[in-house]
Amino acid sequence: MDTDLTTYSLLNSITTPEDLRKLRVEQLPEVCKELRQDIIEEVARNPGHFAASLGTVELTVALHYVYNTPYDRIVWDVGHQAYGHKILTGRRDAFSTNRRFKGIKPFPSPEESEYDTFACGHASNSISAALGMCVAARQKGETDRRVVAVIGDGSMSGGLAFEGLNNASSTPNDLLIILNDNDMAIDRSVGGMKQYLFNLTTSNRYNQLRFKMSRILFKMGILNEERRKALIRFANSLKSMAAQQQNIFEGMNIRYFGPIDGHDVKNLARVLHDIKDLKGPKILHLHTTKGKGFEPAEKDPGVWHAPGKFNPDTGERILADTSHLPPLYQDVFGETLVELARQNPRIVGVTPAMPTGCSMNKLMETMPDRAFDVGIAEGHAATFSGGMAKEGLQPFCNIYSSFMQRAYDNVIHDIALLRLPVVLCLDRAGLVGEDGPTHHGVFDLAYFRPIPNLTIASPLDEHELRRLMYTAQLPDKGPFVIRYPRGRGVLLDWRCPLEEIPVGKGRRLKDGTDIAVVTLGPIGNIAARAIARAEKEQGLSIAHYDLRFLKPLDEEMLHEIGQRFQRIVTVEDGVISGGMGSAVLEFMADHGYKPDVRRIGVPDQFIEHGTVAELYHLCGMDEEGICHQLSMNNRQ
Amino acid sequence: MDTDLTTYSLLNSITTPEDLRKLRVEQLPEVCKELRQDIIEEVARNPGHFAASLGTVELTVALHYVYNTPYDRIVWDVGHQAYGHKILTGRRDAFSTNRRFKGIKPFPSPEESEYDTFACGHASNSISAALGMCVAARQKGETDRRVVAVIGDGSMSGGLAFEGLNNASSTPNDLLIILNDNDMAIDRSVGGMKQYLFNLTTSNRYNQLRFKMSRILFKMGILNEERRKALIRFANSLKSMAAQQQNIFEGMNIRYFGPIDGHDVKNLARVLHDIKDLKGPKILHLHTTKGKGFEPAEKDPGVWHAPGKFNPDTGERILADTSHLPPLYQDVFGETLVELARQNPRIVGVTPAMPTGCSMNKLMETMPDRAFDVGIAEGHAATFSGGMAKEGLQPFCNIYSSFMQRAYDNVIHDIALLRLPVVLCLDRAGLVGEDGPTHHGVFDLAYFRPIPNLTIASPLDEHELRRLMYTAQLPDKGPFVIRYPRGRGVLLDWRCPLEEIPVGKGRRLKDGTDIAVVTLGPIGNIAARAIARAEKEQGLSIAHYDLRFLKPLDEEMLHEIGQRFQRIVTVEDGVISGGMGSAVLEFMADHGYKPDVRRIGVPDQFIEHGTVAELYHLCGMDEEGICHQLSMNNRQ
Repeated sequence: MDTDLTTYSLLNSITTPEDLRKLRVEQLPEVCKELRQDIIEEVARNPGHFAASLGTVELTVALHYVYNTPYDRIVWDVGHQAYGHKILTGRRDAFSTNRRFKGIKPFPSPEESEYDTFACGHASNSISAALGMCVAARQKGETDRRVVAVIGDGSMSGGLAFEGLNNASSTPNDLLIILNDNDMAIDRSVGGMKQYLFNLTTSNRYNQLRFKMSRILFKMGILNEERRKALIRFANSLKSMAAQQQNIFEGMNIRYFGPIDGHDVKNLARVLHDIKDLKGPKILHLHTTKGKGFEPAEKDPGVWHAPGKFNPDTGERILADTSHLPPLYQDVFGETLVELARQNPRIVGVTPAMPTGCSMNKLMETMPDRAFDVGIAEGHAATFSGGMAKEGLQPFCNIYSSFMQRAYDNVIHDIALLRLPVVLCLDRAGLVGEDGPTHHGVFDLAYFRPIPNLTIASPLDEHELRRLMYTAQLPDKGPFVIRYPRGRGVLLDWRCPLEEIPVGKGRRLKDGTDIAVVTLGPIGNIAARAIARAEKEQGLSIAHYDLRFLKPLDEEMLHEIGQRFQRIVTVEDGVISGGMGSAVLEFMADHGYKPDVRRIGVPDQFIEHGTVAELYHLCGMDEEGICHQLSMNNRQ
Repeated sequence: MDTDLTTYSLLNSITTPEDLRKLRVEQLPEVCKELRQDIIEEVARNPGHFAASLGTVELTVALHYVYNTPYDRIVWDVGHQAYGHKILTGRRDAFSTNRRFKGIKPFPSPEESEYDTFACGHASNSISAALGMCVAARQKGETDRRVVAVIGDGSMSGGLAFEGLNNASSTPNDLLIILNDNDMAIDRSVGGMKQYLFNLTTSNRYNQLRFKMSRILFKMGILNEERRKALIRFANSLKSMAAQQQNIFEGMNIRYFGPIDGHDVKNLARVLHDIKDLKGPKILHLHTTKGKGFEPAEKDPGVWHAPGKFNPDTGERILADTSHLPPLYQDVFGETLVELARQNPRIVGVTPAMPTGCSMNKLMETMPDRAFDVGIAEGHAATFSGGMAKEGLQPFCNIYSSFMQRAYDNVIHDIALLRLPVVLCLDRAGLVGEDGPTHHGVFDLAYFRPIPNLTIASPLDEHELRRLMYTAQLPDKGPFVIRYPRGRGVLLDWRCPLEEIPVGKGRRLKDGTDIAVVTLGPIGNIAARAIARAEKEQGLSIAHYDLRFLKPLDEEMLHEIGQRFQRIVTVEDGVISGGMGSAVLEFMADHGYKPDVRRIGVPDQFIEHGTVAELYHLCGMDEEGICHQLSMNNRQ
């Protein structure tokens, strides 16, 4: 570990990229060293994403050194690689609040800084957005504005990136795409594009030669800048005609440069300088190391993607003792899936690049030929699962709720329409905390509810999750959605026998006479505490119903509620517009019941980042908020 | 035109592909001739998709001849190329009911035939689904089951196809992908992949040579089947090592064959026979002509994609005189967009491969540098629009409602979160008629309503469409959704001054005292007729409110309704689960009003195909159905 005390003599002089650009190119390696050390020390104290940003230190410095930011636009694809960018663009002092409630946002955001050009929480969108910016600059006659998209090789497996490339090749633009190739998404990269990029790397001599030659001729004064570009263009055409097979990028009319070492900051700055004014779309392929400069992170970049607190000197992670805590829902999913797969040979698992995050890695380790990491490709994950289900397999396709938005049509068209028995497990459902608005999984109940043929359920606790998973894989259950949150459950003894839950049957957890509280999912545990408190403090008698299934609704139970209660409060960890509370309203209206119904959930706005507890409080979804609602006179 | 009377002597002998497989390969050209003629005569009488199926006649015959269907799986990508497939798989007699209510389904469907393996209404899903089937066959030990995906070059621009390819390259499978390259989607193909495929074609000699050589050696008895395959494999590796740049497919470990002539059925059958048992993923690149064998369709395949009725002998299209009819909403959109673009230089247009269908072609013709056909790539269309809007342009992004499901996350993450002023025009919203369940645009109101920052509107008529379009492009309106249906409006004199509509303001079209009818969009015109009839027949007094904006709601108007009425009926051309009626219910509940609310709209099931009138009747959304609901005692 680097134990010398960094003085940050250069970094201290940089408030904005303008300051960086005053330095000599020879000073950039020192800037990188200081920036890297700063990231290490900050993230060691205040946990966040780590390894990705270490890998882009040199790129970040080179970009802001060469490009006239913020006038020139840098579009980061997935912002967890952009900590260096934040520190160099006026947010160094505030960086200790990164990811905290009301602090620096987890991902770059145009609301926060003019250097942040676009939303970058979901992978693979940078090329499309940056292409739009290029077109806008042309339309507005801003011929001197340059646009750069920075995309990792993991993000390149997403179809959106390909659509962007495909369009970039046929729309007039001068976009530079920087392909940051570290052979990693959060876990290791998979798929054909990875192989393709590897093959490219082993056959890059021609490109390097051509580029070096043009530089030498330029330096010798034989070529001026214009002619040098002409030569590069001409060499490109020659090569295209000569080569029997084509580089995919150049075959799509996107000039390809590289691969080059993404950690040689001086060379990187020179190359960027050389190509930044070339006309037409171009791609620069960099090799970088995720976790670069921090040995434990280089060795195990998956673990160090977001390591939590650690000792910046020793590299020791500061892990809390969790043995006395309930398990993570993720682990319950992972363990139960293996258990079910042992019993049911038709079960297979699918994850779009989140094997560790969703614990699909447990199935991958136990039965490697029955688990599929398909890369960052949520749409494909769903349709691929549909294909397997059509032929009699029983896929469990696990996608984070906010990423499931990318597979919406696939679920409708390739699963629900055909009634295929895919189990869609929506991890990270509800408010997720520090990752903020791009990652909250709050829309899923509302967007899946209108889709015919779906069963939609959410477990109150770990036992219910296990039972729902067991139920979903029984014959003839059709497409089955199970949503559950990030984080820990409520039971220490979470293993229980696997028993069927009747589809569409909720349950009354507690009886009462004044108010019926209807909940869906683990937030029911918070509601239970609020109920106890409201009963104690206000002398109310409150019934608690766990709906369990958003679809099909438990009509018998809802009739009971409609008949017995004049006051209903619904509680869900999702948007109230169109969500579970809405389903209750629809049922009551359709059957002529006229209770007062108050819906508690996420209001109609994007919710910022913070701890889950802080956000629940913000939305009135915590014990206090629910208790307050229960204590109010429902009538206005 | 071919005027000889086809006797269909071969086609008459074919009830299933089993019969086809009894023929000698020399008879296949005659089968193709008869099949093509049969398609021409059928579609001339009973309109449907046309040119695509003419282009795949030889491929269809060759596939069913070589493969053991239905045991072997053929997955068609976008089913409008599959009429020949339907005719050869037991549906020739019923084919005259194609696309008609209760008749043959518009797109292949596993519900209809065991030869139809998957849903194929939305493009680009075939590789993913077929890969799933391959994996399933392996898991189940069905080593003799072969799977073929047939995908057009237009569909290859969709990101999902790329995600499928990417995964196919790294998952063990023996999939054959047939790339049917006719340089067309519905309109002409665009983008880099098209260019890439063209380049591939001009450099295919090596592939052809290699393939021919192995055939010759095989025929001479020098190679057995096993060795022949080994040779092909070996040559592949050699080439990969030798070639400085790689064919993208082979670079992704997917063997590439072709391109070959897709209309030489005997050769096609031979090639398929040769490669069908090769292990590993492979792609066969065919060149075909959309509209092949029918001269007018070959000349203008765009028009003949779905030409309506025509004379099969002369090729003359039978066009009804529409001069006395109101205009298509599509044309009002197209004309108005040009009008607005003349006034507002920030306006640009975006369409994902539907320039003719949505009338974006009008802008493309008038201002070609301000209109962008981005290919079949709905996600990119939205994010690309977001990028342009971020830099100050005013994009109108036109996507069919059912295809907008593919851009759901893009709208949330790349537009709504950033409050970017993209106008999203949802054409083909509501029940679309003969194209059936994959194409009905019925979910959009429900899935967009929960998204913060969106304005969502639907015009009652052509004037309102023009005014909404005008309003949406005024400064500071943020993301703005306008949905309207396929087909004709209601006004002969549709041009009107472009005036602003206050955002979130509905209007009372007619007053009354017994019931308030709340409608959204053009279905309000049907509701108006139903109201008049119910008033006349039942002596009721019914008020009619045009909500105009699903979001933000007109709270003032809804308060008026809540205060004045005990009975409310909502009418929308979309799902009632979570839709506009639900929004009204939520408002009433939130404000303590307790009217009876009846919601009319699409019930919670996938609606089949038929004329729009038939489907409206089916769902109780026609004049009769609405009138019936108004006449009922709302209380149960």
